[in-house]
Amino acid sequence: MSKLSETLKDIRRRVDDMLDKLLPLPVGPEKQVVEAMRYATIGGGKALRPFLLMMTASMFGVSKEDSLRVATALEMLHSYSLIHDDLPCMDNDDLRRGKASCHKKFDEATAILAGDGLLTRAFEIIGSEKSWVDPVVRCELVVALANAAGFHGMVGGQMLDLLAEKEEIDLPLTEVIRLEGMKTGRLLIFACEAGAILGKASFEERQALKTYASDLGLAFQITDDILDIEGTVEKVGKTLRKDVKANKATYVSLVGVDAAKQKAKELIQHAIDALAPFEERALPLKELALFILTRDH
Amino acid sequence: MSKLSETLKDIRRRVDDMLDKLLPLPVGPEKQVVEAMRYATIGGGKALRPFLLMMTASMFGVSKEDSLRVATALEMLHSYSLIHDDLPCMDNDDLRRGKASCHKKFDEATAILAGDGLLTRAFEIIGSEKSWVDPVVRCELVVALANAAGFHGMVGGQMLDLLAEKEEIDLPLTEVIRLEGMKTGRLLIFACEAGAILGKASFEERQALKTYASDLGLAFQITDDILDIEGTVEKVGKTLRKDVKANKATYVSLVGVDAAKQKAKELIQHAIDALAPFEERALPLKELALFILTRDH
Repeated sequence: MSKLSETLKDIRRRVDDMLDKLLPLPVGPEKQVVEAMRYATIGGGKALRPFLLMMTASMFGVSKEDSLRVATALEMLHSYSLIHDDLPCMDNDDLRRGKASCHKKFDEATAILAGDGLLTRAFEIIGSEKSWVDPVVRCELVVALANAAGFHGMVGGQMLDLLAEKEEIDLPLTEVIRLEGMKTGRLLIFACEAGAILGKASFEERQALKTYASDLGLAFQITDDILDIEGTVEKVGKTLRKDVKANKATYVSLVGVDAAKQKAKELIQHAIDALAPFEERALPLKELALFILTRDH
Repeated sequence: MSKLSETLKDIRRRVDDMLDKLLPLPVGPEKQVVEAMRYATIGGGKALRPFLLMMTASMFGVSKEDSLRVATALEMLHSYSLIHDDLPCMDNDDLRRGKASCHKKFDEATAILAGDGLLTRAFEIIGSEKSWVDPVVRCELVVALANAAGFHGMVGGQMLDLLAEKEEIDLPLTEVIRLEGMKTGRLLIFACEAGAILGKASFEERQALKTYASDLGLAFQITDDILDIEGTVEKVGKTLRKDVKANKATYVSLVGVDAAKQKAKELIQHAIDALAPFEERALPLKELALFILTRDH
C-alpha cells in the first residue's frame, strides 16, 4: 500500500471515530434523524477534505489530533451537501458512496433534516473551545466555512447547476468553470485554508495553498466528469452516465475527453508548482494531486 | 397604537433593512436562490425572536443598533426552519405569512437551497467581527444557536413531529411538551439567552430569562394551537385546522381548549414572575408575554 493510501485510510478511521463521538444517538424517537446523520457520514468516501485540512495543518506543526475536530466538522458539512444534492427534487440520485442514498434508506423528510442537522452541527463543533482554544481562530473558521458553503459558494453553485440541468440557462465554458469552482472548489480551498489558519501560515503561504486547492478542485471535477463517462459503478459507487443522459454541459462535454485529460494534467502540474515553497513538507499534498490524475474512484 | 406594537414595528423595519443589506443579489443566474432567501425573510412575520433578543440585550444597556446584526441572523435561521417545514415531504403547507410558501413561489429545490443558504448565512453573520467585537462572545453565540437549532433542538423536534404525524409514534402529553420545547422553545430561549450574552448578564439573570422564555414558548405554542382551531386564515396567514384534520396530538387536543387556555394563562403569569428581579427594565418582555395571551395572529 502506498504512503498516500495509508494516510487516507488513517484519516478516514480517525474521522469515523470522531463522527461516532460527535453524533451520539439520543434516547427518544428523534434518534432517527441522528441515525440518518451517522449513516450519511461514517465510513463514507475518501475523506478528501479532512485529508487536505489535516495535512495542510501538519505542514505548520499542527498534530492530527489537534486538527481532527475541525476536519470532522468539515466532513459533516460536505456530507450534508451530498444528502441534499441527492434529493429527488435536486439530482435525484439513489446511490451514494456505494450504498442507498440517505432519502432512499430513510425518507425525504428525514434526509432533509439529517442534512440540516449536519450543517448545524458542523458550526457547533467549529465554534466550540474543545475544537480549538483561540476564539479568534474559531470565528475565522466559522466565517470562512460559511462563506464557502453559502450562496457565494456551494449553495450558489448548486442553484446554477439545477438551472443548467433544467436547461433554463445555457452555460459556456467560463460559466461551467465558475459553477464547479462554487460547487466543489470553494470547499476544497476552505480545507487547505483552514489548515493554514490553524497553523498560522503567512499570507503568502495561504495564497500558495489556495492556488493549489483551486487547481486541484477543477482537476478533481474534470476527472469526476471523465469517471462519469469511463468509470464503473462498482468502483465509483454512484450512478454514472447521468451527465450524458441529462445532456448536461460539463467541462468534458464542452471540450471533449482528450482535451479535458490534458487540461487536468496541466492543472495538477500547476497545483504542484504552487507547493514549491514548502519543499518536502508538501509531499502528502503533492501525492494527493498526482492521485487525482490516476484515480478510478 | 400601543407601545408594544410600535416597538414590534420598529424592530421589524430595522431587521428588514438589515436583511436587505446582508442578502445582496448576486449578478449571475444563481441570484434565484438569494431572491428566494429574501422572499422568505424580508417583511415576513412579527419578528418575535429579534424582538426578544434586542429587548433583552437592551435591558443590559446594549443598543438596538449593536444587537441588530445578531438579531437578524436569528431571524434568518428561524425563516430557514419555516421554509423547510413547509416543504411537501414535511408539513406540505402552501401558505406562509399570508403569501405563497417558498417552494410554491419558486420550486422545491430552490426552497431547500434557500433554507440551506439562510442557515449558513446566519452563522457567517454571527461569526463576523462586524456583528460583535469580542470573539469569545461570537463563539458562544454560534455554539448556543447551533445547539438550539440542531438535533438536540429544532431539527430533533421536527423529526418527532413528523413521526407523530405519520402516526409512527403516539405522543403522551409529556412528549408533546418536550417536542414543542425542542421545536419552538429552544429558539425562543436562545433569543433571550443571546441578549443576555451580549449584555454580559449574570448567571442568575440568565436563568431568570431562560425561565421566562421557556414558559413563553409553551404558552406561544398553546395559543398557536388554539388559533389553528379558532383563528381566521386572513389574520393568521397560514393554513388552519391542519392539526385537527391530521388528528395530530397537540397540547390542546390532549387537554381541551378550556384547560389549554387556563394553562397558557398560568404559564404567562409564571413567565412574568420570572422577570421580577429586572423591575421596570423588563417592561417590553412583560408586554410581549401579555400580548401572547390575547393575540389573534
